Amino acid sequence: MQTIPQRLSALRAALRERGADACIVPTSDYHGSEYVSPHFRLREYLTGFDGSAGTLVVTQAGAYLWTDGRYFLQAEAQLKGSGIELMRIGVRGVPTIKDFLHDTLPDAAVVALDGRTMDAAAVKELRQAFTDKDMEIRHDPTLFDGLWPDRPALPAEKAWLLDERYAGESAKDKLLWLRREMEKHAADVWVLSGCEDIAWLLNLRGGDLPHTPVPLCFCFVEKERVCLCMDASKRDEATSAALEALGVEFRPYEGAYGFACRYGQGVTAVLSESKVNFALWEVLTQNALVLDVKDAIGLRKSIRNAVQIENLHQAHVKDGAALTRFIYEVKKNGAAWREAEAADRLDALRLQTEGCLGLSFDTICGYGKNAAIVHYRAAKGADAKIENRGLLLVDSGGQYYEGTTDVTRTIVMGPLTPEEKRHYTLTLKGMLSLMTARFPAGTRGAQLDVLARAPMWREGLDYRHGTGHGVGYLLGVHEDPVRIRNSSESFVFAPGMVVSDEPGVYCENSHGVRLENLLLCKADADTPYGRFLSFETLTLVPLERAAVETDMLSREEIDALNAYHKRVYEALSPYFEGEALAWLQEATWPI
Amino acid sequence: MQTIPQRLSALRAALRERGADACIVPTSDYHGSEYVSPHFRLREYLTGFDGSAGTLVVTQAGAYLWTDGRYFLQAEAQLKGSGIELMRIGVRGVPTIKDFLHDTLPDAAVVALDGRTMDAAAVKELRQAFTDKDMEIRHDPTLFDGLWPDRPALPAEKAWLLDERYAGESAKDKLLWLRREMEKHAADVWVLSGCEDIAWLLNLRGGDLPHTPVPLCFCFVEKERVCLCMDASKRDEATSAALEALGVEFRPYEGAYGFACRYGQGVTAVLSESKVNFALWEVLTQNALVLDVKDAIGLRKSIRNAVQIENLHQAHVKDGAALTRFIYEVKKNGAAWREAEAADRLDALRLQTEGCLGLSFDTICGYGKNAAIVHYRAAKGADAKIENRGLLLVDSGGQYYEGTTDVTRTIVMGPLTPEEKRHYTLTLKGMLSLMTARFPAGTRGAQLDVLARAPMWREGLDYRHGTGHGVGYLLGVHEDPVRIRNSSESFVFAPGMVVSDEPGVYCENSHGVRLENLLLCKADADTPYGRFLSFETLTLVPLERAAVETDMLSREEIDALNAYHKRVYEALSPYFEGEALAWLQEATWPI
Repeated sequence: MQTIPQRLSALRAALRERGADACIVPTSDYHGSEYVSPHFRLREYLTGFDGSAGTLVVTQAGAYLWTDGRYFLQAEAQLKGSGIELMRIGVRGVPTIKDFLHDTLPDAAVVALDGRTMDAAAVKELRQAFTDKDMEIRHDPTLFDGLWPDRPALPAEKAWLLDERYAGESAKDKLLWLRREMEKHAADVWVLSGCEDIAWLLNLRGGDLPHTPVPLCFCFVEKERVCLCMDASKRDEATSAALEALGVEFRPYEGAYGFACRYGQGVTAVLSESKVNFALWEVLTQNALVLDVKDAIGLRKSIRNAVQIENLHQAHVKDGAALTRFIYEVKKNGAAWREAEAADRLDALRLQTEGCLGLSFDTICGYGKNAAIVHYRAAKGADAKIENRGLLLVDSGGQYYEGTTDVTRTIVMGPLTPEEKRHYTLTLKGMLSLMTARFPAGTRGAQLDVLARAPMWREGLDYRHGTGHGVGYLLGVHEDPVRIRNSSESFVFAPGMVVSDEPGVYCENSHGVRLENLLLCKADADTPYGRFLSFETLTLVPLERAAVETDMLSREEIDALNAYHKRVYEALSPYFEGEALAWLQEATWPI
Repeated sequence: MQTIPQRLSALRAALRERGADACIVPTSDYHGSEYVSPHFRLREYLTGFDGSAGTLVVTQAGAYLWTDGRYFLQAEAQLKGSGIELMRIGVRGVPTIKDFLHDTLPDAAVVALDGRTMDAAAVKELRQAFTDKDMEIRHDPTLFDGLWPDRPALPAEKAWLLDERYAGESAKDKLLWLRREMEKHAADVWVLSGCEDIAWLLNLRGGDLPHTPVPLCFCFVEKERVCLCMDASKRDEATSAALEALGVEFRPYEGAYGFACRYGQGVTAVLSESKVNFALWEVLTQNALVLDVKDAIGLRKSIRNAVQIENLHQAHVKDGAALTRFIYEVKKNGAAWREAEAADRLDALRLQTEGCLGLSFDTICGYGKNAAIVHYRAAKGADAKIENRGLLLVDSGGQYYEGTTDVTRTIVMGPLTPEEKRHYTLTLKGMLSLMTARFPAGTRGAQLDVLARAPMWREGLDYRHGTGHGVGYLLGVHEDPVRIRNSSESFVFAPGMVVSDEPGVYCENSHGVRLENLLLCKADADTPYGRFLSFETLTLVPLERAAVETDMLSREEIDALNAYHKRVYEALSPYFEGEALAWLQEATWPI
């Protein structure tokens, strides 16, 4: 097995051979997926750093890994002895990749990359920045060939069709809708490159990515037919037949680029430049007129229909029962567990739930000071022992036929400090404030962010992550464009959207609190002042009465908490009996 | 005296003579000032409509007046018989001026305007839209000559210097700062076209505009000298000498365009395209390199220094005493008054206050259903009688050496309906929410807007105006770029900025509530979560305890109201005695 320096030196030789001065190795598959299959973990292979986010840049003079604050400590440790310099994103004096390449490479330098692993918008931005030095960005799909001897194969899991009783809408109707959208743009083809978009459109699911149940594929929707580039091994006869009935023709997965070549002059193609990979975009723009349309599919996909909403309610009862069972157990036995054992127990409870197809992401289970690390991952052996005091933060979720869940509870393991109680209560106030909000149609997601933060801001606290993200339906647990965070974005809420509500307080080396419910946006009253919207809470898991400083809550907040607990008890009590039921009753008793 | 149709027909003849197909007559002076002097009320002369906002477009085929919702009723009445069609901005199906001209005029049409009355950015936008039809926008400074026989002359009030004990900073230091800014842009000249910007820079004030105490002028700040285009009649010897000591050279007001011609190739000029008028911009761009720099002066101008802050406190005590005296009187005698009489009484009280130079805008005094009209102006004769019940809304302010005030109170005149009390209390909750906010440095004004709205939104209410605007220092009562409103703007708060906090509820044909305090942004705690900012309330005028539904307030809100009233009593009680003092004590008593 080669060492990291040997791997990098082989890569440098390949660069020299091809006349390239540098290369970029992002952490991405060909679709910009959040979780990538092992085949795409080239950056990890070349660096030894296995965090989820990072970009490697290699020149003849050096090698550099950009990653963000979540991974500074881990990357420092894992890069030791590799000769790779850590570039800490966001730290003063650390250049962006764009500036670094621009400022260190000579005029007319060539930067190579596998253009399938970076989106077109990002590469265009680099190109733009490089024009004044006449530098070139070159897509080279074979650049890394032979550099990773035991590279895992592309995943080859079976795809399957999601029944309409789960999807709530036929693929035929969605195609009708998309073709009407195409008419608006006078488009001949809509190029879908995100596996989740394609899965949504065709009611198709698969198993090629961790946590996100989709097949690797590209899709070209034309006026009369649909071309799906997905390897034949992924479909059985029934799936093929059902798709063919929709007018789908099949091509091999790797054939997408060759297929796209066929769109010649006079063809108008629609795609999203921040989603489609650069290689595919480059092929399409050779001859066709390419329109960059953002969010059209994402916005449509984000609206849950009546069937999905009914299903989601079921999913959240089942999922809530599993997590609540875990809370009951960890409070009883938790002091005998380490963090990873606790996470395993929760995962087992969730996976044995009827209709659960998997976890929607790796469970975060952080005790004490580990709860202050926002993206903590308990590593077996290096994980902390849970004790009979303080707080245990658990952020987890499942994939069900009835939808995707994502829920965080911070569990009281025993006596709390006054500060822990204060921070729990402020987090609860923030969560309740968003949960109970009413707002006029047209309100941007960015406007609502402050509702969850204001109670903390008053106490000089804040959290360094967004307040909420969209959640797919048996798709990605983080789904754009729905989001609630401080930004200038113009994303606007509509009935049927699902968003998380997850404020937190993180006290380094001490403790952390995060609470997360999923909310469903619904139509509310029409008044002379406008059409109003509000949220219904989907998540059904008890909060911690013992962590609440009642004096810090207003009458409205207390009422909201009690009403929520009443709903939780009514929904979950059928899943409990005996001692556990008595505990649930007490846990959801009014304060 | 000519009729409106005669005036328009003379204008059409002028257009034909000059080979123009249409003309645009905005409501603006040469500086984009909010309040314009009579000389600039050409649009009013040509239409008969005297609202503060409106743009006239005249073609050979017709005449059209665009105005916004505030003025639909008034414009309908005033345009009757004029042959001018009312174009209601924001109403479905009503085109923008840009679209209207583009779609109705023939190819290669010429649109004339006095380019001094529209900002460069707006004209550039029109130009851009007209390119595909090869249409021309032509600046014609003599287009309207002779069309308005008795046109009022340009104002010729004396300018004067604001003492440093009021300005808190010397013009010399501000020029030093501006020249350092120029260095950043490698600029040879900074072109200031806003009278308020120039007044701020040179500690100069004047009397050429209603409500905003500034002289009409342009200013060119070069590296070694300053050229001030302001008519000689405006300055006495002392003013001239003081300005000359700063390196100021004088030119006539109308000489600005000729002066700007002198900037040739190789000269770099900085200006703000959304502030400078098109005619001046056109001259400058002929030869010089022009950089569009937004908000640099506005942001610096928006920060109050320590001397100004001390002065502002004094101004708000004096102003608060005058308004509070009025509230006391109107409650006692108001039922004998009509709205305009009440406004006159308030204006008299304010104008007789020591150091008051004038009103910062025309007092809004609306009783009952008139209070629901956001920009109501009580017209003598047509104004309502005040009665011994319901609510009287009064929005007013003054110009003092110690700063500019702007305050709204909704006064209880007698028994209230439960709805009036509810709306008052919700408005109060919104105002208190922003007033008591704490937020991290870097928070955008747009983020805070929702704090004032959320309590109303919960009840299905909203208001169709921003929550807050910046306020100048003995300058404009509405001062950019400070603002709190729903937008994607990136304006960020900093200590020393002054902003209004003015939520409201407007119930058409019934009643209206608005409450407005001015807030000063201040540094607050530094915590591990960041540097925090908060507001200090400047305005000192009692709120209405009798209009508050105490049950609707939280403990924190009650505490905030009582603490505010305690401050009000302490500040204002020295101005009252006897029965009035007893009333003030009761009005500010804790609830």
